[in-house]
Amino acid sequence: MRGLFVGRFQPFHNGHLKAIEWVLRECSDLIVLVGSSQACYEVENPFTVGERIEMVHDTLKASKLLEKCIILSIPDVNNNALWIAHVNSLVPKYDVVYTNNSLTRKLFQDAGRQVKDIPFFDRLDFDGTKIRKAMLKGTGWQKFVPKEVEKFIEKKKIIQRVQTVATGDKMC
Amino acid sequence: MRGLFVGRFQPFHNGHLKAIEWVLRECSDLIVLVGSSQACYEVENPFTVGERIEMVHDTLKASKLLEKCIILSIPDVNNNALWIAHVNSLVPKYDVVYTNNSLTRKLFQDAGRQVKDIPFFDRLDFDGTKIRKAMLKGTGWQKFVPKEVEKFIEKKKIIQRVQTVATGDKMC
Amino acid sequence: MRGLFVGRFQPFHNGHLKAIEWVLRECSDLIVLVGSSQACYEVENPFTVGERIEMVHDTLKASKLLEKCIILSIPDVNNNALWIAHVNSLVPKYDVVYTNNSLTRKLFQDAGRQVKDIPFFDRLDFDGTKIRKAMLKGTGWQKFVPKEVEKFIEKKKIIQRVQTVATGDKMC
Amino acid sequence: MRGLFVGRFQPFHNGHLKAIEWVLRECSDLIVLVGSSQACYEVENPFTVGERIEMVHDTLKASKLLEKCIILSIPDVNNNALWIAHVNSLVPKYDVVYTNNSLTRKLFQDAGRQVKDIPFFDRLDFDGTKIRKAMLKGTGWQKFVPKEVEKFIEKKKIIQRVQTVATGDKMC
Amino acid sequence: MRGLFVGRFQPFHNGHLKAIEWVLRECSDLIVLVGSSQACYEVENPFTVGERIEMVHDTLKASKLLEKCIILSIPDVNNNALWIAHVNSLVPKYDVVYTNNSLTRKLFQDAGRQVKDIPFFDRLDFDGTKIRKAMLKGTGWQKFVPKEVEKFIEKKKIIQRVQTVATGDKMC
Amino acid sequence: MRGLFVGRFQPFHNGHLKAIEWVLRECSDLIVLVGSSQACYEVENPFTVGERIEMVHDTLKASKLLEKCIILSIPDVNNNALWIAHVNSLVPKYDVVYTNNSLTRKLFQDAGRQVKDIPFFDRLDFDGTKIRKAMLKGTGWQKFVPKEVEKFIEKKKIIQRVQTVATGDKMC
Repeated sequence: MRGLFVGRFQPFHNGHLKAIEWVLRECSDLIVLVGSSQACYEVENPFTVGERIEMVHDTLKASKLLEKCIILSIPDVNNNALWIAHVNSLVPKYDVVYTNNSLTRKLFQDAGRQVKDIPFFDRLDFDGTKIRKAMLKGTGWQKFVPKEVEKFIEKKKIIQRVQTVATGDKMC
Repeated sequence: MRGLFVGRFQPFHNGHLKAIEWVLRECSDLIVLVGSSQACYEVENPFTVGERIEMVHDTLKASKLLEKCIILSIPDVNNNALWIAHVNSLVPKYDVVYTNNSLTRKLFQDAGRQVKDIPFFDRLDFDGTKIRKAMLKGTGWQKFVPKEVEKFIEKKKIIQRVQTVATGDKMC
Repeated sequence: MRGLFVGRFQPFHNGHLKAIEWVLRECSDLIVLVGSSQACYEVENPFTVGERIEMVHDTLKASKLLEKCIILSIPDVNNNALWIAHVNSLVPKYDVVYTNNSLTRKLFQDAGRQVKDIPFFDRLDFDGTKIRKAMLKGTGWQKFVPKEVEKFIEKKKIIQRVQTVATGDKMC
Repeated sequence: MRGLFVGRFQPFHNGHLKAIEWVLRECSDLIVLVGSSQACYEVENPFTVGERIEMVHDTLKASKLLEKCIILSIPDVNNNALWIAHVNSLVPKYDVVYTNNSLTRKLFQDAGRQVKDIPFFDRLDFDGTKIRKAMLKGTGWQKFVPKEVEKFIEKKKIIQRVQTVATGDKMC
Repeated sequence: MRGLFVGRFQPFHNGHLKAIEWVLRECSDLIVLVGSSQACYEVENPFTVGERIEMVHDTLKASKLLEKCIILSIPDVNNNALWIAHVNSLVPKYDVVYTNNSLTRKLFQDAGRQVKDIPFFDRLDFDGTKIRKAMLKGTGWQKFVPKEVEKFIEKKKIIQRVQTVATGDKMC
Repeated sequence: MRGLFVGRFQPFHNGHLKAIEWVLRECSDLIVLVGSSQACYEVENPFTVGERIEMVHDTLKASKLLEKCIILSIPDVNNNALWIAHVNSLVPKYDVVYTNNSLTRKLFQDAGRQVKDIPFFDRLDFDGTKIRKAMLKGTGWQKFVPKEVEKFIEKKKIIQRVQTVATGDKMC
């Protein structure tokens, strides 16, 4: 059985990794779909899609999960009713969708897909917004992310980018 | 004389129907243009364009107005100055635009089109936002919409969709 | 039962009208969907979508078929696998698709839709390419189109446009 | 040495003109790039791109700076990481970017470009938002803009447009 | 009186320059609009838009015509009927269009614009296709283009690019 | 060292597999990028992107190469000069590009990337066009593709799709 797991992964954090480990107990393999792929250099979305794929890839490789996963990406679609069709055109076949997002769940359900919740291990500890706030302060974000993500963020100097983006200047 | 009447119709309500009846007293026929056609599964825009066309169609058929109306749709354009050109490319010829929206009026006027106000019968009673709030509570929305729209909303379980969308989760 | 009938209608001709009459013997109503809506001022596509909707509308009105028809339009989508999803998002619900086009049939069938052929009354006599060639020569095209389309083409001086477009100059 | 100076120019004001004069003391010529070209008929963006180019052109001509400047425009790109590539594809070669916007600076720097600050002559006096507010009141905006811009705004009745847009009605 | 002159300028050649000189005898200034701005690295369109603007700019500067010209660019629009609206939104106001292209002329005329022919000085000698063929052979192209364009093509090694593109390989 | 290998994979054939095996002798891992991702249900492009990813994935898994590969996809971009920027935004970092396509090579080289040829093992035997022609006839295509691709094509009844598409009917 193949699962589908969608997230923005801004950044890929311990909660995501635990969720994938949990899903792979009942699925033989999993499509990890990086959503809102176009969004980057924004307060809510500092990472590019290539960077997010790299974080997911490096972490899953270190966790020995890579061979069970297919990492793909999809941009936002301006018509919510068409999003599922875009997903279905873009990814290999899958049997069940794992999500805790109510709109995502509703759209997949309306399209006749099976959807399951992920029993998130303490959602408060694995919240993207909270992690990005810590990154903005420049401290305390490391504990929320896998070792590989920490290294990646430091090598690419993403903290500095987050702080630049947070000045609120829009482009031009 | 052919009129043009633009609206998002989220949902199509009694105010819209009265407006169309009023316009058809001075126009022989009318283009009913469903705007922001791409918007759906959003708090302000729960219905898909196909659903909105179906609500307009069913109501106008029941009201014996269908033969005088041409129901079409148009997506948003990211450049307001081009919107009128898109409308003009998309619809059959028309003589006068009916709208109470100040931006729509300005754009058509700047393009040299005749624009008329609609004397809205008690705007407070026919306000889309207010109706969507009632739909969210699940009660009291029926009196604002034509019988055919009420049936459509119930058959399609739109109340449930409005409540899902209102959880505020953005996709992925 | 509601049918769906797709065509480019460049122009709307007698074959289209006969097909609609034939379909309406087994359907109570019909969505007439103007495809490739963006294409115009081209050799194969001289008419704008607004003009095509106007030709369909005027003819169906004169034929007393308008009340049974919903005329809508859809642009091309650059991914064939997504086209059906766009159609389904855009139009009211329908039960059966009428088409003689093999790609359209295949796409709707792969999406699980019922598709029926239209027994075209002498396809040779009702071929868009042949009619556009006659329009280019400026003679002999009138017999292939309904009276209302003939009037429309003359009033809008479309013959002159067809001849301009045929010089083969691409824009700029 | 050729510089690149990006702005929305909503409207082109005295601060922009002073900045260009300042840059042209160290550059032999300058690309003046009108950003967010699609934005218009909005509270923050009342002018069309054609109008903005016209204001820049008329002012630079009157200031005898036109021959040293290349005025171009670029729409927003939905992926910030691609914006620099769009700029580089669109404009002639340039050596240095002048901007006080932190996101613009960051993106050009990440792409390996040299970026310089502009010592803005009293930023408070040359702030687009403040000028648009004065335009909305209909008074006191003239002192912030070059003579040619003042004339342009009056001839095109832009004050009336700003006030219409400010009613807050969204299109349809 | 301001003129508008549209071309792809692949490359900008002596015929274009003569045309501009001719137009500037009856116009006080001229918008030179680089069309199909997105097209590049193709057999028919080897140059990027930035390169084309640079060729036009350098030539007009050397010819002392720059101050009378506004050089802008516009991408193709997939709906021919909307192209004029895009042009009008993008450029400053103009009074008359100069073109020998029959589709461009028709579109501007249908939009109510004045259009004039350019008495091309021996069209055979100034034909883009012919010049690109000479560039492909690598010889004999220099006589068709202004000195500045010749230098530009050599400095940027465009001949090599034309020959690469001509192998006919499509991307990926 | 990470490589990048781009192809349309219509279908993924033995030549592609051999190329990947060859590259992985000098690279520790490889990004396999499915290009023209939007193209499908066409004579030259029968497969959807999801199907192509599935064929690549299944084959690499069976060949024990999956853990060294990152399979991603990218749509065509209408401006060739922007394609590399799209690739770079979309994929994790890479060191060298492997391609025999002259346009792809040129674009990556102009962007300063290292590009290497793949010594294709008898190109005639591994040519997509030839394989699609065999698929159209319904016979003799199996020997050109990996076992997993053969199974996939049969299970999904792609031969039937290829034959439908080949009737030449364009949509609507």
